[in-house]
Amino acid sequence: MKVLGIDPGTAACGYGIVDDSDGRIRALAQGCWTSGARERPELRLRRIFDGVVMLIAEHGPDAVAVEESFVGRDARIALFVGQARGAALVAAATAGVACTEYAPARVKQAVCGYGRAEKGQVARMVRMLLSLEDEPSTSHEADALAVAICHAMTPPLARMAS
Amino acid sequence: MKVLGIDPGTAACGYGIVDDSDGRIRALAQGCWTSGARERPELRLRRIFDGVVMLIAEHGPDAVAVEESFVGRDARIALFVGQARGAALVAAATAGVACTEYAPARVKQAVCGYGRAEKGQVARMVRMLLSLEDEPSTSHEADALAVAICHAMTPPLARMAS
Repeated sequence: MKVLGIDPGTAACGYGIVDDSDGRIRALAQGCWTSGARERPELRLRRIFDGVVMLIAEHGPDAVAVEESFVGRDARIALFVGQARGAALVAAATAGVACTEYAPARVKQAVCGYGRAEKGQVARMVRMLLSLEDEPSTSHEADALAVAICHAMTPPLARMAS
Repeated sequence: MKVLGIDPGTAACGYGIVDDSDGRIRALAQGCWTSGARERPELRLRRIFDGVVMLIAEHGPDAVAVEESFVGRDARIALFVGQARGAALVAAATAGVACTEYAPARVKQAVCGYGRAEKGQVARMVRMLLSLEDEPSTSHEADALAVAICHAMTPPLARMAS
């Protein structure tokens, strides 16, 4: 199965597509959409929306997995993360691909075997699991690949419960 | 000029279109998209996205005005409001219509002449300004019409500064 993973954020939104077939999991694409604080909010969000729509058109993933961003207590940051997530979710819905959200601890548990793993560990495990030459260049890409791996490795019934 | 006003929210997202021409301002459409907490998040957001896209196709507004929701201190609520706002903003951007965001106090100042006006006052003033037979049936519709009126009544140069 092919999974598009997304780590939502307005300034930087990471994505990664993994393909799990023949008992082997590998990365098909990975990257990050970035935008500056001076750009119009709707155009920054459109970059994410268009990006997701294009990736789905190009790779035809079976599912989209989104990291349930930890937003802390800052309502203003949460609002911006929410906007980015809204743009990504609506793009997946428009393309007719089902979305599943995973809490950060669950992604870390799936990828590192430990729910409180640090950023660096996630990046190293993503590199190892996908046999990448290098670690992903940003934590957004690593987190997006990690949530995609988490979805691909989650048994179907457990997925439905999430 | 025609303005589509939006009061974003996931459970209930209000909209209203006003037309300001020949020195008279009137409502062309108003309503509310609602969804239940048990529906899939991406489908709830898609209802907003599709709604905005359809309203723009039908009425061809010159601008979209969005209320900068007051989210308080609850980061979880802010995240959901942000998602709804993201869906609405990205729909406007996809349709190529510019968005302007207005703080609640500014909308109240424009509509009621007082930045701390209460919900009831906003609904009464919206009814009066638009010569509606009744007050809007929900505060979401009243707030959406209010932000559309606010944009229509804001002088062009002041709009650019917002």
